Amino acid sequence: MAELIEALAARRAQRAFDPREVPAETQELLWRAVSVAPSHGNVQSVRLLVAQSKAARQAVAGALSEGNRNWAPAAPLLVALASMPGHEHADAYGEERAIWSFHAGIAAGNLMAQATALGLIAHPMAGFDEAAVGGAFGAPDELRILVVFAIGFPGPVESLPEDLQRRERREQRRQPLERLVAIDRWTAANAEAARDASRSRRDGGKLER
Amino acid sequence: MAELIEALAARRAQRAFDPREVPAETQELLWRAVSVAPSHGNVQSVRLLVAQSKAARQAVAGALSEGNRNWAPAAPLLVALASMPGHEHADAYGEERAIWSFHAGIAAGNLMAQATALGLIAHPMAGFDEAAVGGAFGAPDELRILVVFAIGFPGPVESLPEDLQRRERREQRRQPLERLVAIDRWTAANAEAARDASRSRRDGGKLER
Repeated sequence: MAELIEALAARRAQRAFDPREVPAETQELLWRAVSVAPSHGNVQSVRLLVAQSKAARQAVAGALSEGNRNWAPAAPLLVALASMPGHEHADAYGEERAIWSFHAGIAAGNLMAQATALGLIAHPMAGFDEAAVGGAFGAPDELRILVVFAIGFPGPVESLPEDLQRRERREQRRQPLERLVAIDRWTAANAEAARDASRSRRDGGKLER
Repeated sequence: MAELIEALAARRAQRAFDPREVPAETQELLWRAVSVAPSHGNVQSVRLLVAQSKAARQAVAGALSEGNRNWAPAAPLLVALASMPGHEHADAYGEERAIWSFHAGIAAGNLMAQATALGLIAHPMAGFDEAAVGGAFGAPDELRILVVFAIGFPGPVESLPEDLQRRERREQRRQPLERLVAIDRWTAANAEAARDASRSRRDGGKLER
């Protein structure tokens, strides 16, 4: 498992999908990866809304931002990852830290790592109408949807429009470890924002708007 | 990498540490796993505060909740995982979804997966005084600390007090997939809280208060 870092680093938010379905047993490995994610007090507040039927897929696809509608509907699976804030412990840790969002993040990390390990794309999208995605499933208003994943096996980049082909080939930019990590003491480097450092270029963004 | 689910499922929030140091190159693999975590607009708002010196470790240990102070100071590394909300895009996606907390969650998921893959414990703790942990590093007030990890190699369970030995041996409870996953349609099972289902037992909790 020493190669995990390579898999995590190799993950890319790709957009070109192969049309073949994701087998049920492969899907279950993704759900299990989410299931074993830890949570404060083991509240397990995370939920997955899986659009499998044509009707559900169309409803979710229609709730995506315009930019995502250009490519994401070609994915065989659209999956919303959500959280039930009311399931959290009503203590300061939970409320002040928006722990429902933190828990969803841990689950999302597990799902993406598992997808990458299985040779799948799990492309996270932030750009969607939350009420419309929830409505597609008949989910209650209290459910908070953090991200919608387009999931499937990779297809040929050439199947994408030209502007998206260029984006697929762009390098993934990461800030230096000196900015990420403070050893014993916070430094001026830690305070620098990646956005400022890259002069507001958003090209390396990994969660699609 | 098909065995990743086994590693994710095998992760346990253990408390018995071996005193040996975590080598610098092993630590760097953990930081790199966080570094490659995706973020909306690639803002990379996550930060790691690593207590390596004796003074820093003592300051962080002193900021932990009483329950965590019983065992966590024996870990060779104490690492706070935090986020800079001001580094996020000031759009609805970011603000309404507390995306600073979500981003920290993805990073935490990557760190725990990488730690497990390396045979390390990375035990997440929610119980700490946030201002005191930030203060130990001289971090700015705007930094939000989501979790403190006790990190190190596993040691003998017998080194723990008896009540903690019992907790170490407890089974990890997870809700059934029918409650986690909604296929095409939200169901009554999805609405059920793990807390209610377990009659408020908190024993399976994986983020320590």
